[in-house]
Amino acid sequence: MNDEQSRSRFTLARSARFASVDDNGDPHLVPIVFALVGDTIYFVIDFKPKKTTAGLKRLANIRSHPRVAVLVDHYDDDWNQLWWARADGRAVILDEIDPDALAALADRYPQYQQAPPGPMVAITVERWTGWAAVG
Amino acid sequence: MNDEQSRSRFTLARSARFASVDDNGDPHLVPIVFALVGDTIYFVIDFKPKKTTAGLKRLANIRSHPRVAVLVDHYDDDWNQLWWARADGRAVILDEIDPDALAALADRYPQYQQAPPGPMVAITVERWTGWAAVG
Repeated sequence: MNDEQSRSRFTLARSARFASVDDNGDPHLVPIVFALVGDTIYFVIDFKPKKTTAGLKRLANIRSHPRVAVLVDHYDDDWNQLWWARADGRAVILDEIDPDALAALADRYPQYQQAPPGPMVAITVERWTGWAAVG
Repeated sequence: MNDEQSRSRFTLARSARFASVDDNGDPHLVPIVFALVGDTIYFVIDFKPKKTTAGLKRLANIRSHPRVAVLVDHYDDDWNQLWWARADGRAVILDEIDPDALAALADRYPQYQQAPPGPMVAITVERWTGWAAVG
């Protein structure tokens, strides 16, 4: 898939996986729900942050190493149906919740019509990549 | 979820996402199909490696930085149904296909009754982590 096709597939997904790198240089991987506004992916730290330590680790990772990856994929036992799309970019933790981004999140997830539990992360996508078994 | 619950949930998934770290220290993220044998996750490089460069990048990442993460997650618009399970560990590229691991893969995926297209990766899981909205 080309850049635009990859970006387009990405928006079809209800959830994604967020990879960051910790201070040891090791990968850290969690699921996220997200909204794409232009070429920026927004998400809020944790669906339900039961452990603040986990959320804090993710924040520390982003601050010390802003390059991140976000993956969306579709699995089917018929491997002709497989596809995935990935966004590689730079993440920042916003000082305040971006109201337009929150509106985009609430539009996708009614749960976000209430104030989200944690800080908002914005990822400026620098590269879209994707693959589909059947083009 | 505790270690054993996380491991158990992990086995329920048909596919997972594999995070490695490249030579720049940036995360790299792709979907995989896998088999878990004991506490080792096995997968074969690429469903269908159309571009050898992508497969080679993953191999180079593993060689230079063996610490990897593998995530399984379940999304539902009812967020009480959310759960995820993660395996953190060390990956090695096997010199030869492990016949027991290939049998485990073929048991899950009939596509692997034919010889797989690429080399096999074995991840020794050092830590199981997981979370469920409703325990």
